[in-house]
Amino acid sequence: MVASLRLPSLTSLLFPATTRYPASLRRTVCLRNRPLSGFATAPSGTASPETKSTEVDRLRSDRAVTPRSQDFNAWYLDVIASAELADYGPVRGTMVIRPYGYAIWEAIQEYLNVKFKETGHSNMYFPQFIPYSFIEKEASHVEGFSPELALVTVGGGKELEEKLVVRPTSETIVNHMFTQWIHSYRDLPLMINQWANVTRWEMRTKPFIRTLEFLWQEGHTAHATPEEAEKEAKQMIEIYTRFAFEHTAIPVIPGRKSKLETFAGADITYTIEAMMGDRKALQAGTSHNLGQNFSRAFGTQFADENGERQHVWQTSWAVSTRFIGGIIMTHGDDTGLMLPPKIAPIQVVIVPIWKKDTEKSGVLCAASSVKEALQTAGVRVKLDDTDQRTPGWKFNFWEMKGIPLRIEIGPRDVSSNSVVVSRRDIPGKAGKVFGISMEPSTLVAYVKEKLDEIQSSLLEKALSFRDSNIVDVNSYDELKDAISSGKWARGPWSASDADEQRVKEETGATIRCFPFEQTQGTKTCLMTGNPAEEVAIFAKSY
Amino acid sequence: MVASLRLPSLTSLLFPATTRYPASLRRTVCLRNRPLSGFATAPSGTASPETKSTEVDRLRSDRAVTPRSQDFNAWYLDVIASAELADYGPVRGTMVIRPYGYAIWEAIQEYLNVKFKETGHSNMYFPQFIPYSFIEKEASHVEGFSPELALVTVGGGKELEEKLVVRPTSETIVNHMFTQWIHSYRDLPLMINQWANVTRWEMRTKPFIRTLEFLWQEGHTAHATPEEAEKEAKQMIEIYTRFAFEHTAIPVIPGRKSKLETFAGADITYTIEAMMGDRKALQAGTSHNLGQNFSRAFGTQFADENGERQHVWQTSWAVSTRFIGGIIMTHGDDTGLMLPPKIAPIQVVIVPIWKKDTEKSGVLCAASSVKEALQTAGVRVKLDDTDQRTPGWKFNFWEMKGIPLRIEIGPRDVSSNSVVVSRRDIPGKAGKVFGISMEPSTLVAYVKEKLDEIQSSLLEKALSFRDSNIVDVNSYDELKDAISSGKWARGPWSASDADEQRVKEETGATIRCFPFEQTQGTKTCLMTGNPAEEVAIFAKSY
Repeated sequence: MVASLRLPSLTSLLFPATTRYPASLRRTVCLRNRPLSGFATAPSGTASPETKSTEVDRLRSDRAVTPRSQDFNAWYLDVIASAELADYGPVRGTMVIRPYGYAIWEAIQEYLNVKFKETGHSNMYFPQFIPYSFIEKEASHVEGFSPELALVTVGGGKELEEKLVVRPTSETIVNHMFTQWIHSYRDLPLMINQWANVTRWEMRTKPFIRTLEFLWQEGHTAHATPEEAEKEAKQMIEIYTRFAFEHTAIPVIPGRKSKLETFAGADITYTIEAMMGDRKALQAGTSHNLGQNFSRAFGTQFADENGERQHVWQTSWAVSTRFIGGIIMTHGDDTGLMLPPKIAPIQVVIVPIWKKDTEKSGVLCAASSVKEALQTAGVRVKLDDTDQRTPGWKFNFWEMKGIPLRIEIGPRDVSSNSVVVSRRDIPGKAGKVFGISMEPSTLVAYVKEKLDEIQSSLLEKALSFRDSNIVDVNSYDELKDAISSGKWARGPWSASDADEQRVKEETGATIRCFPFEQTQGTKTCLMTGNPAEEVAIFAKSY
Repeated sequence: MVASLRLPSLTSLLFPATTRYPASLRRTVCLRNRPLSGFATAPSGTASPETKSTEVDRLRSDRAVTPRSQDFNAWYLDVIASAELADYGPVRGTMVIRPYGYAIWEAIQEYLNVKFKETGHSNMYFPQFIPYSFIEKEASHVEGFSPELALVTVGGGKELEEKLVVRPTSETIVNHMFTQWIHSYRDLPLMINQWANVTRWEMRTKPFIRTLEFLWQEGHTAHATPEEAEKEAKQMIEIYTRFAFEHTAIPVIPGRKSKLETFAGADITYTIEAMMGDRKALQAGTSHNLGQNFSRAFGTQFADENGERQHVWQTSWAVSTRFIGGIIMTHGDDTGLMLPPKIAPIQVVIVPIWKKDTEKSGVLCAASSVKEALQTAGVRVKLDDTDQRTPGWKFNFWEMKGIPLRIEIGPRDVSSNSVVVSRRDIPGKAGKVFGISMEPSTLVAYVKEKLDEIQSSLLEKALSFRDSNIVDVNSYDELKDAISSGKWARGPWSASDADEQRVKEETGATIRCFPFEQTQGTKTCLMTGNPAEEVAIFAKSY
């Protein structure tokens, strides 16, 4: 499969006007000369099967993605296509998540699912069709979501009496069900989660980051007191934060959203904000303290210990396939994807090297033993033993795919009973170590240590990149300077929503959050000069 | 939560005419007097919180489900409500899968996901919105599915140019993508799977068995030869068969569908057919050899080793949340649910028993140790240590929930360092064993052995029930007798589609399958007297 040949279709996700176009147009576009303005200018003409095969080979050997340093957005789309993470769907703005991308999602699921269960949540499943009237019940919710709804109006060949919303999120239907399950304080807390698809009719889409349909988990809880709900909302953003740091090596900044940026229907929204390689911010996960907004709208009540009816206090929290986009844009480099070992579907790729046929069986046999040893030790390992590609081609290919470690085994290594190990995160010879013993226990220990080192190193690198790109500001002029130089601005803020809106209009930056980690001492609002209790972080964002 | 109070809503799933109705009507319906004709005749009036609480308790202590022997359908709905497996959704025919029901689905996923990966399939995700034009491309596919489609006609506040189908199955969109990924024989076989929700606008719905939206996995593969596709289709039905037998203790009969019952778009459909407790058949999983039907409709081609363009040969196969309904209706009894240990979210429930407060701490301490020992050994165990319920109430409750084994621990057991173990599948004293040592290694071994015994015993029981309800027939009269006595009829068949249709109209039975296991010897068609190559199984079905 030739990922590079499909590139314009990913580009097309960015351009709402483009819809489906004939396959013939898609097939012969060279990666490097990819038109950035959509498919319309793509070279026409269809290659015959034979010439296509040749072109496939040419493109494969010439598989380099647009360098990240040259064009971040083109690089991002190239990586997604070349690494076969995702593809466009036939409906504008939809995305097919391919096996390699989906495996990253499965790793995310595996980690979070355990954490959710450990903290007392049960998985379940709510229908995705929601009566339109539900959406209208919570005033700010309908305001926030109604422009983005997909509506089912025909079912079984008949016009429906009430149109149905394809869930953009499930607070409304969850509350409808909670009213039937919650009677007394003994039924609380009620803590559930679902893994599901959601639909939001976005106009400007980008693979993983913002698509018409995406996958996520949404947690929903109901509590007897506001304190419990607040504790839950904070606990979940803490779980997301640890996941981001420890598993994906993304040094997110957790904090509270400004009123303007709070979820439609929440009292408080907590967020984790990540700095991408282009220094734009990505909201990577949110946890909402919903107060009693939905329980009042839906009448979700319980009898307390005195028999009094009370509205429950609620939370909801979500992480989506957007996180995959965050991983790509945090760690990737000019060469392509770079995956943190803990989240990498393949942690180690083994490339056997032989020239003569007489060498082949010895090399392959050693490679298989190494694979076996690593696999047994729980390392996710791939042996690339095809003879249709050169070792050099394989090196490039697996580097582009972001595999953290490569093991090379040639005839000389077989003789010396050793291997060569190369780190993806340290390019060239500096990342290459020769003569690592093939003896299973030694090799396994070495590989595991290196994977840990890479994991830490990616986090440190991202952390230092992040910190060197946040500027502390004390005036609006300083803020504007920071933003216009592409950085994040952090400064004391107690100004109005109108002022916040003005910053957005004049600089393109929004308040990403009031970070949990605050500096001590008296603060003066950068905009008004009034006393401020907190610093806020401003940045341009996805 | 009072599952029984919600019953009429489940009943309402059966009656398409009923839609949402005020919560006040739902709350005071007694389980035993549940109106079978829908909610309209339900007693009206709303209980105050206080009286509701009392009624909750009354109903809880009076929680028995309608005996299965008395009314199979009412029993089924009662079990689903009382065991909190599922609930109706607000949109007619939709279902909320509650944590206990969803945990069974997770167990199904866990097993099958491993098998799919072992056999070379990768998970991925396709968008659920399919352009309407796609559905029309394969003639029999559109004929089969168009009456059941849900259509999105409005997105982002605007009428769409082309209406979108909410996927009823994904063959069309899969082929659209396969055309872009498959170029040469080297790209084959392409073997993928997705876990997803699907929507079919069914008119007569029943929880788990037939709902407007359901969860499933759908595998899709493309091959270079018809032989490979056939082998794949058979391999997958074999995996389903083993899963049914070994994991869910359902002795399904695998076989081939008749032409009339073949999937819309397939050349051959393989099926596993299960006999429910009411002797109706349930199609529990299918695997389709799609031939080149979709690849021709979508132009899914590859260049073979000679450079010739060929259409790929395809399969698709699916198992859905319907399987949960099959588990309920295979093993349940008058008391309620009965879960095979391998699929049970809780395999063992521990009920501590004490009368005096002085006994409590010793009993609870022993119960905790037992729980700890079993959990460490990988047994899924629940300790029910609430003091708001009597042990007798707990026994009934967990029996109704279908937990395979119960461990009782009272003060005398603590003194003798032993426990009492009761089997769910053997009622009363016969299933109860006293004096099993609490010593961890002894107890763990005993529990594991009993769980295995229960698993085997459930399968044997279902197998003997199945076999005693299949009648070998040699004439249409015999077939009619068998069907009218509620049994399955198995007999030689080589008659026409029209004859098959006539059987359906006259008896209500359809050909469930031509079983893989065939008797030897010459056969004469039961309908025509002509030579027949195979026996077919006829039955009424869900």
